[in-house]
Amino acid sequence: MPDYRRNPITGHWVIIATDRAKRPETFAASATAEEPESLHQKVPEHVDNCPFCLGNESMTPPEVIAWREGDSPDTHSPDAPGWEVRVVPNKFPAVAPEGEPELSERGRLYQEMPGYGMHEVLVETPRHDHHPGDIPLEHMRKVIDAYYQRYHELAQNKKLKSVNIFRNHKKEAGASIEHPHTQLVALPFIPPGSSEELEGAHQFYLAEGECPYCAMLEAEIQSGERVIFANDDFVVFIPYAARLPFETWVVPRRHRSSFLQIEDHERESFARAMTEILGRMTTLLDDPPYNYYLHSAPLHIPALPYYHWHVEIFPKLTTVAGFEMGTRVYINVTIPEESAEYLQKIKGNVYA
Amino acid sequence: MPDYRRNPITGHWVIIATDRAKRPETFAASATAEEPESLHQKVPEHVDNCPFCLGNESMTPPEVIAWREGDSPDTHSPDAPGWEVRVVPNKFPAVAPEGEPELSERGRLYQEMPGYGMHEVLVETPRHDHHPGDIPLEHMRKVIDAYYQRYHELAQNKKLKSVNIFRNHKKEAGASIEHPHTQLVALPFIPPGSSEELEGAHQFYLAEGECPYCAMLEAEIQSGERVIFANDDFVVFIPYAARLPFETWVVPRRHRSSFLQIEDHERESFARAMTEILGRMTTLLDDPPYNYYLHSAPLHIPALPYYHWHVEIFPKLTTVAGFEMGTRVYINVTIPEESAEYLQKIKGNVYA
Repeated sequence: MPDYRRNPITGHWVIIATDRAKRPETFAASATAEEPESLHQKVPEHVDNCPFCLGNESMTPPEVIAWREGDSPDTHSPDAPGWEVRVVPNKFPAVAPEGEPELSERGRLYQEMPGYGMHEVLVETPRHDHHPGDIPLEHMRKVIDAYYQRYHELAQNKKLKSVNIFRNHKKEAGASIEHPHTQLVALPFIPPGSSEELEGAHQFYLAEGECPYCAMLEAEIQSGERVIFANDDFVVFIPYAARLPFETWVVPRRHRSSFLQIEDHERESFARAMTEILGRMTTLLDDPPYNYYLHSAPLHIPALPYYHWHVEIFPKLTTVAGFEMGTRVYINVTIPEESAEYLQKIKGNVYA
Repeated sequence: MPDYRRNPITGHWVIIATDRAKRPETFAASATAEEPESLHQKVPEHVDNCPFCLGNESMTPPEVIAWREGDSPDTHSPDAPGWEVRVVPNKFPAVAPEGEPELSERGRLYQEMPGYGMHEVLVETPRHDHHPGDIPLEHMRKVIDAYYQRYHELAQNKKLKSVNIFRNHKKEAGASIEHPHTQLVALPFIPPGSSEELEGAHQFYLAEGECPYCAMLEAEIQSGERVIFANDDFVVFIPYAARLPFETWVVPRRHRSSFLQIEDHERESFARAMTEILGRMTTLLDDPPYNYYLHSAPLHIPALPYYHWHVEIFPKLTTVAGFEMGTRVYINVTIPEESAEYLQKIKGNVYA
């Protein structure tokens, strides 16, 4: 008998296909037989015509910022080798920092506005073959610092309402360039993916007087059945109403509505949590394609008592089709508790 | 400069990537060089181990209903050849008609209920190679009659709140069985994909005193720039704020909130509209994978003045990735007016 489970933030029902559930192992057919290193044997360290590889800096628009030598951003000798993390404007941006995001009407039905916004690419490493599932922790820390740095900078722009950080790993998950990179899209409005969480969290707060993410952390830590691991500052777990197999959330323990509020020591823990969970997925799920994104409160407002920034990770192991598109009801063919148990088993990242 | 366009129903912004927009022709690379018939040369008429092919009726659960000889449903000699359209319970159902859809609480945070519902497969034709893009109109009429018949029957069940009809064409769009089929999933709640349209339409109605779909039809027919074609009862157009390339809506001209209200002559026009648009996509977009679904008012309530049933079709020509998943903002790399013009050009269905 299948079960419906309700997402306590959005109120949306998910179908957990208990009867036809797949064992977690079925998603890792070849992984157990292989060494982690061999997963990447086909990806070269350097590709001559890759715009994000070392020495190819002229193939991108001039860099916004780059980390060179040590931990601090340094704009000395830009657009030349020597960088460890590099941020450039997207060469084919979805939105552009031109004009004003002012509404115009086309009849009483239709509204449009110029596509004002920023679209940046954060090149995570000079190495073509070094994705977050297997980079050293020290390097992931630099990537997280770059996330923070760009988020903080873009958040100064009063025309913007949201900074959206997201990552696509592998072609099947929408990555058009193989070289490890994250994208930032800053928009002049609050996107629906955020506003439905904000509204749901607000309703929970009115009813219960507590942030639902804080309540979730407490419940998850207490039961432990869906927690994959935790460190001093972050808890990594599969949500009760996971929409897709191995959907995983990375949530800061301390209540903070915006990523802007992250403290220095928390950035270290965040890097550790991301390296660890992506490393485990790489090893235990056979280096799957995945998407992740960071959800955070809107810009230019005081801290919210009911919202809590976090990351949601989706390995791409199944195809989303007409039913999910039309209903926005997801059919999860794995059982969240079993998936969590599977990812608890071993330490995936060989460096961490 | 890209543009934002707002969906007048949901209020969601879409990015129309005007700068980097692709010409409609780029999605039809090989189509122009080929005859429509040759598109299907690799799909055989009959497959021995296909559970939906003629003669393999014992491979499915016992049929719910089948159309045999002429237009009326006939349950004589079930589960044997002679049928034209056949409905069977899904062998691996996502939901099941057992127990009661009653809520239980797990702490104050989590809610669940037994996965009560129905999951049926509507086999559209005994021929393995006959998909809606190239079946004769008379046959599509039988498929539409079967949609109506099953919708009407499932709508009698007081435990259910929605009947969700959807179709996945080709593996890339999530079809696990190649043989042409549609699925019906009946649920004991209103899915979020419907409720956000219902809420948005209700808001528009409060502000304007009119159904927004009726207002849209009027505006689209008047401008004509996004209409692909129309017949006496249906208008087929690319919406102003199309989320993905060639997203297309099929909307009845007369205001009806539920598919249950469709009249006999409208079923004929609906079949004609579906055959025509899917035929054009098959010919002009090189037989693309696609999803479509039917959105209709919830069950067991009187007609709504602000909602309007319709079909949304999405050819799968691009990959939805982390940005869309996290923000629910879509980047459309085509211009709706150009796509509509492209699909206006020729008559795709060689039979119609």
